[in-house]
Formats: sequence, structure tokens, C-alpha cells
Amino acid sequence: MIRVTLIGSGNVAQHLIQAFSKTTDVDLVQVFSRRTEAVTHLVDSRKVISDFTKLEETDVIIIAVTDDAIENVSNQILLHNQLVVHTSGSLAMTALHSNHRRGVFYPLQTFSKTKAIDFKHIPICLEAENETDYQTLENLARVISEVHYRVNSEQRRALHVAAVFVSNFVNHLYQIGDDICTENHLSFDILKPLIQETANKIMTLSPNEAQTGPAKRQDTTTINAHLSFLTDANQKEIYKLLTKSIIDNGKKL
Amino acid sequence: MIRVTLIGSGNVAQHLIQAFSKTTDVDLVQVFSRRTEAVTHLVDSRKVISDFTKLEETDVIIIAVTDDAIENVSNQILLHNQLVVHTSGSLAMTALHSNHRRGVFYPLQTFSKTKAIDFKHIPICLEAENETDYQTLENLARVISEVHYRVNSEQRRALHVAAVFVSNFVNHLYQIGDDICTENHLSFDILKPLIQETANKIMTLSPNEAQTGPAKRQDTTTINAHLSFLTDANQKEIYKLLTKSIIDNGKKL
Ligand SMILES: NC(=O)c1ccc[n+]([C@@H]2O[C@H](COP(=O)([O-])OP(=O)(O)OC[C@H]3O[C@@H](n4cnc5c(N)ncnc54)[C@H](OP(=O)(O)O)[C@@H]3O)[C@@H](O)[C@H]2O)c1
Ligand SMILES: NC(=O)c1ccc[n+]([C@@H]2O[C@H](COP(=O)([O-])OP(=O)(O)OC[C@H]3O[C@@H](n4cnc5c(N)ncnc54)[C@H](OP(=O)(O)O)[C@@H]3O)[C@@H](O)[C@H]2O)c1
Repeated sequence: MIRVTLIGSGNVAQHLIQAFSKTTDVDLVQVFSRRTEAVTHLVDSRKVISDFTKLEETDVIIIAVTDDAIENVSNQILLHNQLVVHTSGSLAMTALHSNHRRGVFYPLQTFSKTKAIDFKHIPICLEAENETDYQTLENLARVISEVHYRVNSEQRRALHVAAVFVSNFVNHLYQIGDDICTENHLSFDILKPLIQETANKIMTLSPNEAQTGPAKRQDTTTINAHLSFLTDANQKEIYKLLTKSIIDNGKKL
Repeated sequence: MIRVTLIGSGNVAQHLIQAFSKTTDVDLVQVFSRRTEAVTHLVDSRKVISDFTKLEETDVIIIAVTDDAIENVSNQILLHNQLVVHTSGSLAMTALHSNHRRGVFYPLQTFSKTKAIDFKHIPICLEAENETDYQTLENLARVISEVHYRVNSEQRRALHVAAVFVSNFVNHLYQIGDDICTENHLSFDILKPLIQETANKIMTLSPNEAQTGPAKRQDTTTINAHLSFLTDANQKEIYKLLTKSIIDNGKKL
């Protein structure tokens, strides 16, 4: 049984609370939230605190608050020699106060409060200052997920940047597809099977093997037809840059 | 029973042959291929021809060859008053010879010979010069898929451009994610659940609702950290342009 404290009541905190309450291997001892009403629908209200001095020692305190607030929150944890981790993809482990035994418990996924998610397949990226704490984090990760990786702070930063490309930027390209559909009185639904298949393909093929389209074929006739079709300057610029990047990438291989 | 002729032996032709052979509602009368050996593993060799003068009249002839060859192939079909369609997203219906009753049968999906695909959920975009022929195409589409749309040539061009954004360009962003992982001794597998969830999200949320990340939050600290992390000039440029586009998009709303 791993005794856990959670600080925060946002997307990640709420999903973690739900994942922990599904298992008997975790005892969620306390949840800290500035606004206790944000979590009382998920956890026994006697466990919810909003005063840092009430924090008890547990096996691990997970800080799941906005990146900007992590350092400040960490400083307010007055327990000494306590294992404290954050859940951020972009901050180094050393963003936490050096009074603590420090670590990171970063679930590499995109969370929104409204969409249920199964933790089972979410890769959890782990880091700790010492090996015993790493074992604790690994045991905790195993309880909620089938996949975890040892990832140091530098690698986690790389992952976070990569995640921006394959998730935030990808979603923005979906947005552009949606805009083009709307302008032409077409339903965005028509593109959804293609979007799904594009994501499915790279589960078995490398992105390089899966690449298709006019840029890959260096089909300048189609590329020019597309560029003259596009009237939005921004869409045109993105089309040009990504087409050039695909062509240059083909030359490197 | 719809009597169909297929011209071509590439990705689309092979998937169509397989879809047609699964149903008794379609009689695949002939398959034309310059290289007959390319299709004889899929269809009775007596049906395979490589001489255009041997083409018989059927309810519909589907030309599924390279875009550049469609006009030429269409000109070689000497049957008069025959319904002839192509499967291209980028060419107008009028790319076909005006001797024919013309139409388009465009399956909006990314095909590769090596990856099996279920036609059932592929949207088929239909167009025809006259309503009776449209009905024939609609009946044929219904046999292999649950979804079809009436899409004119201008709209189909828009769809093809949108498809480049949500499929070809998206796959290229997967490629960049893969490159960043490789440079940092991380497995690309670690990003796959995020990629899947990003595609899944927009099945129920609009891309605009689903957008997250530092650009959406206008979190300049993280954006600058990512830019100084990236050393590849091309990756940096793509990061900047897409970040700017997400920020500008937020302002428009
Ligand atoms: N969302 C994701 O997809 C995702 C994925 C992986 C990792 N992460 C990381 O997980 C962490 C939390 O992200 P999130 O998406 O859950 O954020 P969020 O939904 O925006 O929630 C932020 C939480 O931080 C609390 N908070 C902010 N400032 C605080 C302060 N000064 N003192 C105490 N609490 C404070 C907020 O409390 P109030 O409600 O009282 O303001 C809220 O509970 C971040 O480090 C993030 O990088 C996020
Ligand atoms: N691939 C996709 O994801 C996809 C999706 C939707 C629509 N489409 C459209 O479907 C059509 C076919 O695409 P595809 O991907 O199946 O192409 P593909 O795999 O490259 O196959 C092209 C086919 O065209 C034949 N061909 C080329 N030039 C010819 C000529 N002059 N005379 C006779 N046959 C010729 C080739 O025959 P040989 O083998 O003898 O060279 C081959 O069978 C295109 O219009 C494309 O835009 C493709």
C-alpha cells in the first residue's frame, strides 16, 4: 500500500484522484486544494485540506499545479526529508525545493476535465534523485499504468517539445482542415476517418514509411494547384513550409 | 447487381477489387492492368485485360490510375455513352473525355498496399453529370461503405487540400516527433498514446475546443524555452510559424 498526497485540483490532479481511487494499492491520504469544492465530488471531504501546514508525511507528495506555481508550492511544504514530485513535462526536477527528496511523475498525455481517460496505456515518465525513491515511483506508476519509462530532466524536456509537435501542432492542423471544410460548406466529419487512419498507420509503420502526398512525390503540379487554391496567407505559408520540409527530409534519406 | 470495370492495379484499385469481391451485389466484369501480374492474385485471370480495345460496356468503368494518366486512359476508352469515373481527389470531373457520361468516385482515405483497410467507414465522395448516373454511383458506394457524400469538383479540391493538412502534414509532424526522440535516445513509442488520444479527442470535441499547449495559453516562457532547446533551423521555423498561427487563431475567436 503506497500512501500518497496530491496537491492541486486541475486536469491532472482530478484524473490522478480517479485513477488512485480505483485501486486498493494506493491510500490517498490527503488532497490539497485552494478551492476545496473543486475536488469534494471526487474525494471524501475530510481528506481535503487548503492549509499547507496541515500536510502529513506520506510516501510521496505529488504536486499537480500550474508550472508557474510549482516552485512556490514546493517551498510551502514544510515537511523535511519528504519525497516530493511534480507532474510537469517542461520543468526540471530541480525546480523543487532542495529540502525534499525530489522526483518527477510525468504522465505523457493530454488531459481535459471533460473527457474520461484510461490511465492504463498512458506512459508515465519517472525520475528521482535516489534509487529507493525511484522504486517507490515505479511501484506507484505500475498501479495505474502498464507503461512507464525512466526519463531524465533533459530527455523530458525533449519529450515535451516533441509532444507539442505531435499533439498541439497536429491539433492545429486539424483546425485548419476544419476551417477549409467550413469555408466550402463541407462537414468536418468527412475528414475524421482519414485523421484516424493517419494516426493508426504509425502504430505499425514509421512516420517515414507512412509519408504520402504531393510533397513526398514532389508533385509540383498538385502543390501549385493547392497553393493557388488557398487564399488565406497564413494557411499558404504553413503549406509552403511543411511541403518544403517534407521535400528536404526526403533528400536527407 | 452492379456491373463494374476497374482500370488500374495500384493502391486504390487493389483495395477496390478486394471490397467488391466481398459482396454479391457487384459483378466485377473486367480489370485492366498494363502489368496483368499485378492483380492476378486478387482476381480471376480471365477477367484481366491489358488492351483497351477489349473493354466491354458495363454499368460503370472506374479509372484508378495515377492522376497524370487519367486523361490519357479516358481517351483510350472507345465505348460511347459509357459511365466513366475517376477516383482522384485533385482532378475535376471534366478531366475525363466528354464522349463519356462522366463522374467521380473518390474514397477519402490514405491507402497503402501493405495495410489492410475496412472500406465500411471510408467516406466516398460522389459526383456525376446526370442524376441517373449519380444514383448508380450512390448504389455502388452503399455496397462497400456506410458513408458517402455529394461533393462537386470545387469542393473536392478543397477536401483534397484539407486532407493534405490533416494527413500528410500531420504525418510529417509525427516524423519530427520521431526525430526529436531519436536524437535524445528515447523510443518514439512513448509518444504513441498521445498521438492516438489527440486524434480521438476531435471525434467528440471541435479542434478549437481540443486545442491545448503553450501557444494556446500564450505561455511565452515555455515557448522560448522550447525554441532555445531546438537546434534544427527547420524545426525551429515550423515551431515558430505554428505557434504564431495558434496565437492568431485565438485572437480571431
Ligand atoms: N493538462 C495536461 O494535459 C498535462 C499533462 C501532463 C502534465 N501536466 C502538468 O501537470 C501540472 C498540472 O496541470 P493541469 O493541466 O492539471 O493544470 P490546471 O488544470 O490548469 O490546474 C492547475 C491547478 O493548479 C492550482 N494552482 C495554481 N496556482 C496555484 C498556487 N499558487 N497554489 C496552489 N495551487 C495552485 C490550481 O488551483 P485553482 O483551481 O485553485 O486555481 C489548479 O488546481 C502542470 O505541471 C502541467 O504541466 C499537464
Ligand atoms: N493512394 C491513396 O491514398 C489515394 C486515395 C484516394 C484517391 N487516390 C487516387 O486514386 C488514383 C490511383 O491512386 P493510387 O494510389 O492507387 O496510385 P498507384 O498506387 O501509384 O497506382 C497507379 C496505377 O496507375 C497505373 N498507371 C499509371 N500510368 C498509367 C498509364 N499511362 N496507363 C495505364 N495505367 C497507368 C499504374 O500501372 P503500372 O503499375 O502498370 O505502372 C498503377 O496501376 C489517383 O487518381 C489518386 O489520386 C489515391
